[in-house]
Amino acid sequence: MTRKILLLLILFIAGVFCVKAQQIQSPDGQLALTFELKNETPFYSLTYKGKPVIKPSSLGLELFDDPWDLMSGFSLKKSETSRFDETWQPVWGEYHSIRNHYNELAVTLTQEKAARYIIIRFRLFNDGLGFRYEFPEQPNLNYLVIKEECTQFAMAGDHKAFWIPGDYDTQEYDYTESKLSEIRGLMEQAITPNASQTPFSPTGVQTSLMMKSDDGLYINLHEAALVDYSCMHLELDDKNMVFRSVLTPDAQGRKGYLLAPCTSPWRTVIVSDKATDILQSTLTLNLNEPCKLKDTSWIKPVKYMGVWWEMITGKSTWAYTDVPSVKLETFDYSKAQPNGKHAANNEKVKSYIDFASQNGFNQLLVEGWNIGWEDWFGKSKDYVFDFVTPYPDFDVKMLQNYALSKGMRLMMHHETSASVRNYERHMDKAYQFMADNNYNAVKSGYVGNIIPRGEHHYGQWMVNHYLYAVQKAAEYKIMVNAHEAVRPTGLCRTYPNLIGNESARGTEYEAFGGSKPFHTTILPFTRLIGGPMDYTPGIFEMDISKLNPGNKSHVNSTLARQLALYVTMYSPLQMAADVPENYMRFADAFQFIKDVAVDWDDSRALAAEPGDYITIARKAKGTGNWFVGTTVDENGYLSVLKFDFLDPDKNYIATIYADAPGAHYLTNPQAYTIRKVLVNSKSVLKQQCAPGGGYAISIMEVTAPSQIKGLKKL
Amino acid sequence: MTRKILLLLILFIAGVFCVKAQQIQSPDGQLALTFELKNETPFYSLTYKGKPVIKPSSLGLELFDDPWDLMSGFSLKKSETSRFDETWQPVWGEYHSIRNHYNELAVTLTQEKAARYIIIRFRLFNDGLGFRYEFPEQPNLNYLVIKEECTQFAMAGDHKAFWIPGDYDTQEYDYTESKLSEIRGLMEQAITPNASQTPFSPTGVQTSLMMKSDDGLYINLHEAALVDYSCMHLELDDKNMVFRSVLTPDAQGRKGYLLAPCTSPWRTVIVSDKATDILQSTLTLNLNEPCKLKDTSWIKPVKYMGVWWEMITGKSTWAYTDVPSVKLETFDYSKAQPNGKHAANNEKVKSYIDFASQNGFNQLLVEGWNIGWEDWFGKSKDYVFDFVTPYPDFDVKMLQNYALSKGMRLMMHHETSASVRNYERHMDKAYQFMADNNYNAVKSGYVGNIIPRGEHHYGQWMVNHYLYAVQKAAEYKIMVNAHEAVRPTGLCRTYPNLIGNESARGTEYEAFGGSKPFHTTILPFTRLIGGPMDYTPGIFEMDISKLNPGNKSHVNSTLARQLALYVTMYSPLQMAADVPENYMRFADAFQFIKDVAVDWDDSRALAAEPGDYITIARKAKGTGNWFVGTTVDENGYLSVLKFDFLDPDKNYIATIYADAPGAHYLTNPQAYTIRKVLVNSKSVLKQQCAPGGGYAISIMEVTAPSQIKGLKKL
Repeated sequence: MTRKILLLLILFIAGVFCVKAQQIQSPDGQLALTFELKNETPFYSLTYKGKPVIKPSSLGLELFDDPWDLMSGFSLKKSETSRFDETWQPVWGEYHSIRNHYNELAVTLTQEKAARYIIIRFRLFNDGLGFRYEFPEQPNLNYLVIKEECTQFAMAGDHKAFWIPGDYDTQEYDYTESKLSEIRGLMEQAITPNASQTPFSPTGVQTSLMMKSDDGLYINLHEAALVDYSCMHLELDDKNMVFRSVLTPDAQGRKGYLLAPCTSPWRTVIVSDKATDILQSTLTLNLNEPCKLKDTSWIKPVKYMGVWWEMITGKSTWAYTDVPSVKLETFDYSKAQPNGKHAANNEKVKSYIDFASQNGFNQLLVEGWNIGWEDWFGKSKDYVFDFVTPYPDFDVKMLQNYALSKGMRLMMHHETSASVRNYERHMDKAYQFMADNNYNAVKSGYVGNIIPRGEHHYGQWMVNHYLYAVQKAAEYKIMVNAHEAVRPTGLCRTYPNLIGNESARGTEYEAFGGSKPFHTTILPFTRLIGGPMDYTPGIFEMDISKLNPGNKSHVNSTLARQLALYVTMYSPLQMAADVPENYMRFADAFQFIKDVAVDWDDSRALAAEPGDYITIARKAKGTGNWFVGTTVDENGYLSVLKFDFLDPDKNYIATIYADAPGAHYLTNPQAYTIRKVLVNSKSVLKQQCAPGGGYAISIMEVTAPSQIKGLKKL
Repeated sequence: MTRKILLLLILFIAGVFCVKAQQIQSPDGQLALTFELKNETPFYSLTYKGKPVIKPSSLGLELFDDPWDLMSGFSLKKSETSRFDETWQPVWGEYHSIRNHYNELAVTLTQEKAARYIIIRFRLFNDGLGFRYEFPEQPNLNYLVIKEECTQFAMAGDHKAFWIPGDYDTQEYDYTESKLSEIRGLMEQAITPNASQTPFSPTGVQTSLMMKSDDGLYINLHEAALVDYSCMHLELDDKNMVFRSVLTPDAQGRKGYLLAPCTSPWRTVIVSDKATDILQSTLTLNLNEPCKLKDTSWIKPVKYMGVWWEMITGKSTWAYTDVPSVKLETFDYSKAQPNGKHAANNEKVKSYIDFASQNGFNQLLVEGWNIGWEDWFGKSKDYVFDFVTPYPDFDVKMLQNYALSKGMRLMMHHETSASVRNYERHMDKAYQFMADNNYNAVKSGYVGNIIPRGEHHYGQWMVNHYLYAVQKAAEYKIMVNAHEAVRPTGLCRTYPNLIGNESARGTEYEAFGGSKPFHTTILPFTRLIGGPMDYTPGIFEMDISKLNPGNKSHVNSTLARQLALYVTMYSPLQMAADVPENYMRFADAFQFIKDVAVDWDDSRALAAEPGDYITIARKAKGTGNWFVGTTVDENGYLSVLKFDFLDPDKNYIATIYADAPGAHYLTNPQAYTIRKVLVNSKSVLKQQCAPGGGYAISIMEVTAPSQIKGLKKL
């Protein structure tokens, strides 16, 4: 990777004990971070344009088997400030280049009674704050067993929040919009059933947490670079509006085992008075380490289809046969009676390959290809899958060759059933099997309670595992798209083969009863802060009973909005999730999915209000073409789109896929219009979005006069 | 493997409900097993020569998330008896051939209310009883989560017992000899400190448990074929003298996850009125499955030395340098300051190789060869070892080649520090490293608390792991000698590359404060019932301070008895554990260790009383030579040894290594005599054994008259 690096380092050593409060500002001067010791306890606070964002909040960790903890008794030994400014290029992403620009304060705190010290490091960017605990190598600080990390985030008011229940095992909840003070009263109804769930408190919420203050500040709390540490949640003291960190416990209730030298992940506060700034923040990526892979040439963003939605809706099955249980060691599939609904069969997969290749897709995900799906779930089964043995009706070599002959590849699927020891035991052979059979990407899953039993999806044990899988995959040049894994924290900068994650309520829930219409106006402010999401958009038939008469679920979106999601839900891995038949029915709308890019040189959040609407424009990598998406909540929205992001010297053909008059996510979701017009940087579009609707635009640079023949200006 | 199989199957189907009590006898008619349902609950009882061994004892399992359990509500659906008689040859062992001869009763019990059934299968041998629960495949019995296995063993009296505390993590305790009724009062002092220990009850004891009744019956309780199930312990109801099974729990207190079809391990009752019969029992092996390895040609019993005792005594260190902690990812050993006490260095290892090869040994164990020993233990460290990176002063290739040039191999050491995920992650590379470097045997260790945290050494999770390691090792043609693993249950029949285990208080404890002098008169009745033990005998210098002035421990044995252990402690893997200097000092005694075999065509327990003395004779494989060993307790013993096991047509030269007059394990342990005499099958030896003493004899067939020149008859 080539990199432009501009590094300015200015170092101050403040005299010991002579400075009580330490302060730094963001490069643009809008943010100010103050650190001080009060009663020998560390406190920090943050302001934005003079307004309080984080009121004085204490920092520290409680430890097991340690008489002193790391909570108090500190004195300031050293205080260092520095400045950093570097521009780097991601392997894939929303931007061609990203500027990593911050002022830093590192305070060294001595705990005399224990003869040890820690460092708290603050990095203040224009878009927010990151800070972490550092435990340097020293004689009296080797091993730490964390009872709790006690990081406070004291809010300056009873903000509006977009939250899901704090849970050690799932994030697949619908969002609730409420005042902080209302969380407690709304928690019970917010906790909907999930295959594995462990909510921990009536005021516990997940990060990334999006809030808006009464005085118009948008504040986002999350973490960056979660490596070998337990995932952080937040618990609200709803009398004082103070959040405290709650780490995910292990089977014995312990929250982390550390060996110095080491650090905590970064705790992040992204803040602005413009909601769009939150969407454009690169702070999370910047707080992660640079890419550790030497060769990244094999990592390619990908648009894919899948033999998937028909199983999700219940039309087809992952399983090949119908039996109450399968003992993989002994079950003889060759003698089993096929259930007649197994989707991952040679004939069907070939027909999917035909359709996908004809429409320009690169890969086809096939789930349910491997033996074991008859009783894969919910029984704490240890040996569930072997990840290499196909069902009798799935010919790996033939299908992979067939795909290659059509310019495509199959995409691998590894559902682990959360039996993690079993997955790790099979991992090398499974990845080698992929390498031997031309697979270069795997969608992995962690459905159900974790084995080893008692561990949680978001604990240190599993955080360690997810990264282990990504690192090992890199050895085999495999891209990983992990579902039900811990929420991302920008690690894709360091390991760009982590090409996707789920870690939130994805489109599948539209077939499990539906998600709230405003869902996609929130996710970019929350889940996507940490990294891309494999949201699997592109559903054209909202009435699920059309596929499976027994499933009465409804997709709470208009068709036009389904297109917009390819732009608003950034991911280098984008699925066209619906079945081919539905795309054939709406071939003109499908054209947008075929056209839209998956990798970008630039991205602009043009308009946004969490819970209401989001409009984003992106410039396709290596081209002059742009794509725009708008997604809105159940109230509809009149979007006024200025095309001033376009090159003023050029003309473009815009194809606008919008809700038709009368469209409505519930009653009339498939009413859309498509129009092709000429636009330039001075154009303005006024576009009405239906309730639960939106629009998508492809904007192609005009390269020959013949292209514009017969087109009108917008 | 060639096998003589004689299979006689006689089948009775008893009518449903028409037979209340089912009974079978052992082939010799001495043992009688009775099964009956009382109040719809299964009961069994056992007699030997008409005397009660097990009084009516109930059977069943408590389940989680199951409204009925598998405790009662049973009716007898079917009762089948059969007979089995087969002779098989072990890959290695105490006997050339083993007869597997039993009568079987299998009762099918229907639990109507749950519409399901189980089978309880009893096998009655001349040497005892085995029985197990079987869960056949059926619609209403798929997954079982065990709350507790409720198997009773109702004793007929307040027997004398040789017991160690019941513990989920260790068996490294000294034995206590007491009445059953005295266990509770003696428990506290019996629980001595260990690196990982979880005693579970004031009347909890381990299997194999050895008892003697007032009317002279020797009774042994254990289990056979422990596969993917939690290890069983025993808890005594000391009012009624009834043991109940206690399975090892997992991190959540659950005791096993089963998927039908499956079975429990066999629960075993070995019984006789002769103590020697207990030592000669082959019931445990017979209850295991036949060998599953197709090629066993690479499995070779081995006599070895080790760079080990000098670390155990504290003279040297496993670690290369002295630092409080090591982060393997980043620590630079090339810049570390050597501590000067690291034993596994090129020079020393070469000198050990020289000595061992000169004295006919096949392998040299080297511990502390690999990086990470500086802080390997007690910190719940996850990434402790990588199992492939040597210390800077240990040249694997050079040393292995040096060993090969002397007709030897190095023996691998894998201390896992009980961080089992880390071991499994490195296992393939570690075994491949062994294959690449000519290692064919590994001593593995599991010191400390298990990671995943909350799991126990003897729970299903770990039981599964130990076998996984053995199976994977077999793929690389590696023999496994696992220390701190679960106690063996005869699995070496099925996987003969499981060449050894520790799973008890080994010789190392003689350097950690000492073991009771009677220890080795009990182990063959308890720990060795399940399989061979790598006891590491052969210590010639009992005063540990001679090696390490700071260590005042004393080996509670005479030197002559140390020789006897090579015969009494059966193992296909025998170590000469002391340092070369001590063997050079007592070269004449060392000759026995050089001569003694490690694989046998026949074995005879000639005299035995648990806790008092054991005399065993064994015939070396493929030869006419015999070796005899006697070990006795702190009271000494006059042994009268009849040589009637010898071929009456042959003459032999016996070399007798015995305690000298005045020898005593504490005050005069190195006083021994060696005499060479002629013996035949009519010879009788009267030999006084010192307190904590014993003797060893090598008996070589006379093949040429010149050999006996100058020798007297015994």
